[in-house]
Amino acid sequence: MPTPFHQALRALLGPKGALPADGLSSYETDWRKRYPGRAIAVARPATTEEVARTVQLCAEWRVPIVPQGGNTGLVGASTPDDTGTQLVLSLQRLRELRAIDADNLSLTAEAGCVLADLQAAAAHANLLLPLSLAAEGSCTLGGNLATNAGGTQVLRYGNARELCLGLEVVTPQGEIWHGLSGLRKDNTGYDLRDLFIGSEGTLGIITAATIKLYPAPAARSTALVACPSLTACVALLRLARQRLHDGLTGFEVMNAESMALVGEQLPQVPRPLGTPPWTVLIELSSSVGTTAAQTSLEAMLEEALMQDLADDAAVAQNVQQARGMWQLRESIPLAQAQAGLNIKHDIALPVSAIPDFVTRVDALVLRHAPGARLIDFGHLGDGNLHYNVQAPVGSDAAAFLATYEAAINEIVYDAVQLAGGSISAEHGIGRLKREELARRKDPTALGLMHAIKRALDPLDLFNPGRVL
Amino acid sequence: MPTPFHQALRALLGPKGALPADGLSSYETDWRKRYPGRAIAVARPATTEEVARTVQLCAEWRVPIVPQGGNTGLVGASTPDDTGTQLVLSLQRLRELRAIDADNLSLTAEAGCVLADLQAAAAHANLLLPLSLAAEGSCTLGGNLATNAGGTQVLRYGNARELCLGLEVVTPQGEIWHGLSGLRKDNTGYDLRDLFIGSEGTLGIITAATIKLYPAPAARSTALVACPSLTACVALLRLARQRLHDGLTGFEVMNAESMALVGEQLPQVPRPLGTPPWTVLIELSSSVGTTAAQTSLEAMLEEALMQDLADDAAVAQNVQQARGMWQLRESIPLAQAQAGLNIKHDIALPVSAIPDFVTRVDALVLRHAPGARLIDFGHLGDGNLHYNVQAPVGSDAAAFLATYEAAINEIVYDAVQLAGGSISAEHGIGRLKREELARRKDPTALGLMHAIKRALDPLDLFNPGRVL
Repeated sequence: MPTPFHQALRALLGPKGALPADGLSSYETDWRKRYPGRAIAVARPATTEEVARTVQLCAEWRVPIVPQGGNTGLVGASTPDDTGTQLVLSLQRLRELRAIDADNLSLTAEAGCVLADLQAAAAHANLLLPLSLAAEGSCTLGGNLATNAGGTQVLRYGNARELCLGLEVVTPQGEIWHGLSGLRKDNTGYDLRDLFIGSEGTLGIITAATIKLYPAPAARSTALVACPSLTACVALLRLARQRLHDGLTGFEVMNAESMALVGEQLPQVPRPLGTPPWTVLIELSSSVGTTAAQTSLEAMLEEALMQDLADDAAVAQNVQQARGMWQLRESIPLAQAQAGLNIKHDIALPVSAIPDFVTRVDALVLRHAPGARLIDFGHLGDGNLHYNVQAPVGSDAAAFLATYEAAINEIVYDAVQLAGGSISAEHGIGRLKREELARRKDPTALGLMHAIKRALDPLDLFNPGRVL
Repeated sequence: MPTPFHQALRALLGPKGALPADGLSSYETDWRKRYPGRAIAVARPATTEEVARTVQLCAEWRVPIVPQGGNTGLVGASTPDDTGTQLVLSLQRLRELRAIDADNLSLTAEAGCVLADLQAAAAHANLLLPLSLAAEGSCTLGGNLATNAGGTQVLRYGNARELCLGLEVVTPQGEIWHGLSGLRKDNTGYDLRDLFIGSEGTLGIITAATIKLYPAPAARSTALVACPSLTACVALLRLARQRLHDGLTGFEVMNAESMALVGEQLPQVPRPLGTPPWTVLIELSSSVGTTAAQTSLEAMLEEALMQDLADDAAVAQNVQQARGMWQLRESIPLAQAQAGLNIKHDIALPVSAIPDFVTRVDALVLRHAPGARLIDFGHLGDGNLHYNVQAPVGSDAAAFLATYEAAINEIVYDAVQLAGGSISAEHGIGRLKREELARRKDPTALGLMHAIKRALDPLDLFNPGRVL
């Protein structure tokens, strides 16, 4: 039975733009099915103008809006709760690539464009769109910006934030901010762009963006390195930065336990260096060519071996071997999933603080939960660690989580807070970490966030209950 | 006769921290003496805590605050108006370098630290603090961030904004936000840092910051290139980026008229290429060494000559010659000042839009003001042009400005707006461009800015009348 709100939405967006909701559609529940939801309806506007009018309609009817891109988030920010009162506003039909400007090294595209499609469009123009993450085949540009996505190229190119030059945004009042500049410098007032980026749809709906591009590298060279300790990994990072500067585009670390887990769960994945205390994956991008890249990387590694920062190293001799090395790194989450339920933390710390942090927290966790498997890996160059905890071998994972999850989270987040770190490096807050944020964020910062939210969205209609 | 406010300020900050004001001190008028002012008093707190208490006192007494760093700004944002009611809050006594973290590549320092001192401290640790601008000998870190300073290294390293990892800020309520993280990734809520950066003291007072450092380059190589047109300059920029990638740390352009003016006014400055239609200064930084840098730069320049993007080129053979090339670039403002009053515009455009813009606007200006000298130069790699207009040779500059300034500003800013550009690329808004901003900024953006200002500073005590 369509209500007057449904009728008005249908009149505005037509049958392709206004879908009924029943709690069963893929729009209403996150892809990991952790947050089963039920919407009042699903809106699929096709233009920025339609997004603005949908927002105006919702403001009139006081219907809360949950903006949604590719629905690949990990924190429950882009699906409705189960009250049947929230509208899912999907940006999927806004998928025009508006322009590529090679001389300005920029690309302008609508929010619903899939990241991999934009990467391909840039590559077609012999340019690089460096944002790259596991979900790139289905995540969208709007979602990448709303969550300030990270990924594997942050060390050199920064997060989604650093790659964005301009935005088009619909405000909670249904106005359109035309901020799609391709400018690299603009000191005309407050930085609204960065306020919307990472705000998870709570302040505005991003409908399009202008993104920085880079010349495509001429070649890449990749290596795996065995390090005796995490302290040695940090020293190796320092050396690699000094020798390779911006050529250094990847620096990932993996502890022995993660390599052992991959060996157990995915024995077909080659581990050229076995299970040393720490394995480092290094990627060098070169503007010159393959030989130059290989020579620089090998010279740096020789120095590292001489200085006892590394015990062994393997340099990929071709693209296939390089892919295998990345596959090893990317197989850790897969091995974890296969081994059973586990406790995940996506944390950031100053790089210099990481070795002590891991030593201390490993000991605390093991004292509390003897036999737990500590799967530590991540983007050391960004100070971003995936500090995960797996049930002891042979134990019941669900029972382990029920007993230990809350206490282990407390241990890890207390230590993060003490070290001046972040409890969410790249995944965001959403519904998952909202309470942790309220407990742990600097109270003045929280107060400022609430003041901004009230000022821009006084009716609390944009993604209520997320972040704040 | 001290008022109760003056007594309370003196009781709080002591005789070194609370100075009387008479309209005569260097705190009350900008260094170019364009904005003669008179303060109610000058506060010089020595700690963040004292800044917070001063703000609380001012909130109690409803005394507006003008925060001030090195007082080197160009837009009248850091000195009081002439009503004698505004407090100058100087950050100059907050000048502790709190930490350098080599493994995290970061530095934490207080707002009053002079930029050149911080550059030197980084260099002492064999690291690079890349922010670099003409005022670096007296401007301060807090001011650099409050105005999102640009400078000569933006092409590679970004503005002050891109270099900042964390802030400590005193809010209009006199609270302290402890946001001095050295994190490269942190997705825990709204981006308050970037909201304060560039807000010119209207939303908060920056008391300390954590800044990114980089490994110091092993060598630099510098060249001057003669180009037949601005279109050729843009093509040369594209080639230089493809060949040199992040090695490209400088790409400055200067038109024939600016070279001619330097020749006239400062004949002692060498101009190795004479007065071609456009002169480009290219700087390459290398992680390898001098020979490698020279070889890469020369190979790129040969290609440019072959493709007719360049007619001539001179590569500096030593540090002294390189300095001379930068001196040529930096002598243009000096030559302008020496030649007399002139009309300045600090504008940004998409790089690709610049050649057409200059052709069109040059013609419009000359049609309106025949004989005017068009001194165009700037950071082409950032899309940032200093588009300046000088009175015709032999004419009375003051009379020329009185007749033409308003109309020429209108021509230039109309064209900038049409091309989606910025009327203030790096200098900010302050008092100078406040009315232009109100006229020309996207109305939705202006509305958002006003809402944020009201939310964070409801009493309008932080730098009132600046920006908004």
